[in-house]
Amino acid sequence: MTNTLIKDIYRNPDKYYDTEIQVSGWVRTVRASKKFGFIELNDGTFFKNLQIVFEETLENFKEISKLPVSSAIIVKGILVETPNTKQPFEIKAKEVILDAESNSDYPLQKKRHTFEYLRSIAHLRPRSNTFSAVFRVRSLAAYAIHKFFQERGFVYVHTPIITASDAEGAGEMFRVTTLDLENTPKTDDGKVDYSKDFFGKDANLTVSGQLEAEAYALAFRKVYTFGPTFRAENSNTKRHASEFWMVEPEIAFAGLKEDMELAEDMMKYIIKYVMENAPEEMEFFNKFIDKGLIERLENIVNSDFERITYTEAMKILEKNKNKFEYPVEWGADLQTEHEKYLTDKVFKKPVFVTDYPKDIKAFYMRLNDDNKTVAAMDLLAPGVGEIIGGSQREERLDVLERRMKELEMNDEDLWWYLELRKYGGTKHAGFGLGFERAVMYLTGMDNIRDVIPFPRTPKNVEF
Amino acid sequence: MTNTLIKDIYRNPDKYYDTEIQVSGWVRTVRASKKFGFIELNDGTFFKNLQIVFEETLENFKEISKLPVSSAIIVKGILVETPNTKQPFEIKAKEVILDAESNSDYPLQKKRHTFEYLRSIAHLRPRSNTFSAVFRVRSLAAYAIHKFFQERGFVYVHTPIITASDAEGAGEMFRVTTLDLENTPKTDDGKVDYSKDFFGKDANLTVSGQLEAEAYALAFRKVYTFGPTFRAENSNTKRHASEFWMVEPEIAFAGLKEDMELAEDMMKYIIKYVMENAPEEMEFFNKFIDKGLIERLENIVNSDFERITYTEAMKILEKNKNKFEYPVEWGADLQTEHEKYLTDKVFKKPVFVTDYPKDIKAFYMRLNDDNKTVAAMDLLAPGVGEIIGGSQREERLDVLERRMKELEMNDEDLWWYLELRKYGGTKHAGFGLGFERAVMYLTGMDNIRDVIPFPRTPKNVEF
Repeated sequence: MTNTLIKDIYRNPDKYYDTEIQVSGWVRTVRASKKFGFIELNDGTFFKNLQIVFEETLENFKEISKLPVSSAIIVKGILVETPNTKQPFEIKAKEVILDAESNSDYPLQKKRHTFEYLRSIAHLRPRSNTFSAVFRVRSLAAYAIHKFFQERGFVYVHTPIITASDAEGAGEMFRVTTLDLENTPKTDDGKVDYSKDFFGKDANLTVSGQLEAEAYALAFRKVYTFGPTFRAENSNTKRHASEFWMVEPEIAFAGLKEDMELAEDMMKYIIKYVMENAPEEMEFFNKFIDKGLIERLENIVNSDFERITYTEAMKILEKNKNKFEYPVEWGADLQTEHEKYLTDKVFKKPVFVTDYPKDIKAFYMRLNDDNKTVAAMDLLAPGVGEIIGGSQREERLDVLERRMKELEMNDEDLWWYLELRKYGGTKHAGFGLGFERAVMYLTGMDNIRDVIPFPRTPKNVEF
Repeated sequence: MTNTLIKDIYRNPDKYYDTEIQVSGWVRTVRASKKFGFIELNDGTFFKNLQIVFEETLENFKEISKLPVSSAIIVKGILVETPNTKQPFEIKAKEVILDAESNSDYPLQKKRHTFEYLRSIAHLRPRSNTFSAVFRVRSLAAYAIHKFFQERGFVYVHTPIITASDAEGAGEMFRVTTLDLENTPKTDDGKVDYSKDFFGKDANLTVSGQLEAEAYALAFRKVYTFGPTFRAENSNTKRHASEFWMVEPEIAFAGLKEDMELAEDMMKYIIKYVMENAPEEMEFFNKFIDKGLIERLENIVNSDFERITYTEAMKILEKNKNKFEYPVEWGADLQTEHEKYLTDKVFKKPVFVTDYPKDIKAFYMRLNDDNKTVAAMDLLAPGVGEIIGGSQREERLDVLERRMKELEMNDEDLWWYLELRKYGGTKHAGFGLGFERAVMYLTGMDNIRDVIPFPRTPKNVEF
């Protein structure tokens, strides 16, 4: 007899009523009296449990009554409607087979645990309500991203993870090496000899796939990357992880306007897809994690995102500067309090802020005609702040080279990036979405460690 | 005027005939006489070019006639049918705007280049016919994998890239560190002090996400990973790269039989999806890269994969042992020549070989009742050999611990993996598909460096 999946039963119960079926899964709870008992069974396919009723007529009634939480069982029985009760249906068990008994010291008992404790059992936490919801939503959001881009003809590019070039020009990076650190080879002047290393030179983990994505956008017109990126920053905040996934689309024959339209369409698409495909999980988050979540997300889907320039934003903020801790001054970066004021107080919806001063943005962003600002855009979202950062790229070789010289950048490793400007380097633009930030936004979870299956942060590489 | 995409024109030309449209793209070739000329224009959205006819009446006729290859242009004109010619239609240009002129030293001129040379210009090679086909197919294959698993309710898990545990127990790994190698901190006994390193211990790049995927399969029942994996092997072959992507599904309440069914369904799904969505590219490969490719792929889609045990395979091979260079002996691993004989001579279709001797397989594979073999399966494909490796996992804690002791494995880092067996660790199984091997198989390309956008191999970390 094949296993019927609990998701299929919930989505289409009529198909199964009053017939004998077999289900298998893990015991979430058992309550038993002398004559009968109830099992809440979760089979992994669905957020909700299926109720199993079993009676003393079962041969192994006593054993089943005392089953430790998380034991794996196989149940044969009849699905019956249960009107006027909490759950819509239940299975009247004819047979309960103990498949893999759990140990009674199972650390995830019914009582509430802190998220911090659950991080220490990251191999078990997806079995809890909260984390089963988080990681199913994460999976659906990832798929929504692929679906969005593929349906629009974008080519998915796997940009390299190990790299010798530093896309941001400033990120703290992890070194990748096979040198024996107990005995590193040395050059004549006593330095570490990286020519003896695996790649023949100093290599690092990527901080962004953007530069390589640009090369592909100038071939395929519309591309995206979606892969892990790394920061070796020793910062222990709720919003920073050492390893996280990033989505980076790049489009050619397109400027900042098209870039923002793409970002807006993508955000709305992801939210809609997750709300449609994980209604039970979203309801759970709305109830227990972040009241008002669904309303906030629906507001995003249904609103036109605001677009203002950095200079306009500064004017708004200046009028209210006594409300802020940090100074409001043209040329300075927006602080979290400024971003929040714009999204939560002024516009009450997502806001694109564009045309930032060049000195607070990356070297590859396109210089505007005012020679002071660049064609950058950040998307600020109510409640979370910056969620997307993008720009039109500097396609003019001379302007780009001048900027790199100003910043005293070593352009040796970037010869190929400069060459893209020589051979039909038409205007192009792109952005980066921190995937975990998006998942936090979708679920209301407020610590990045709780939306990554096995998070990596300073001093933490467990599992 | 918005740009019409060349893909849309090819897929639905009737919509555009005899109307004025605008296209933009890169010049692949220009041929011009004194009175008129032809441009082959590629806009990145489609494998084929669009022909542009331009006449001397154009203001910039001379300039356009001499346009360097790869220049970006914008063309306004009328799409007209061209019966009795090679191409089905062309655009009669009313205006050709030079958007970004290419330099005349563009390295990818029309003449044929070796794949080896093209690797040295990996930032430009996706503009060539072969590599635009390869990387579009790669993108479609990746999406097909997501689509296959998501449609079947699998949860996509991002398993960690940086890890302290070694899944295979034997892989050569890259170290990830932020220690200053010019001046490494030392412990009292003079060794490198990894407690001072970023993660507080020795950390590496993952060789597989399987062990972590198992944890998630025991929560979500059906999961898959799809991410980069790494091998620090100093081997320069056509089939090995230092960085490559792997797909690893894992299913609970399932054994080797279900595992093989899943692998077979997945392979057929990917092939079908790519053939349906990249017919022009597949025709190109079939003509210029690997004659017989389409027939071979169709044969796979339409055949039931063979299933034989290792012991049966050995019997077949023994009967023909004088045909092989390597000895045929129960207990030894199958060599490429053996695999090829089974797939290409004996069965002429993909073959699952199951139940290998335990000593040539990994520690986590489930021991069979004969105590000599494990519930492993390799999928061998005609022409390429092993493409998938999988197994049922050892779910019995005592058997697993005994096996790890036999192999003198350090089980400290794997405490959580062992714990999975204590808390409802029902039977489960999974496999790994090397994504690049699959792309090679789909395209007929015979060097792994030519199916990775920016390949990493010993001494090569360019771009």
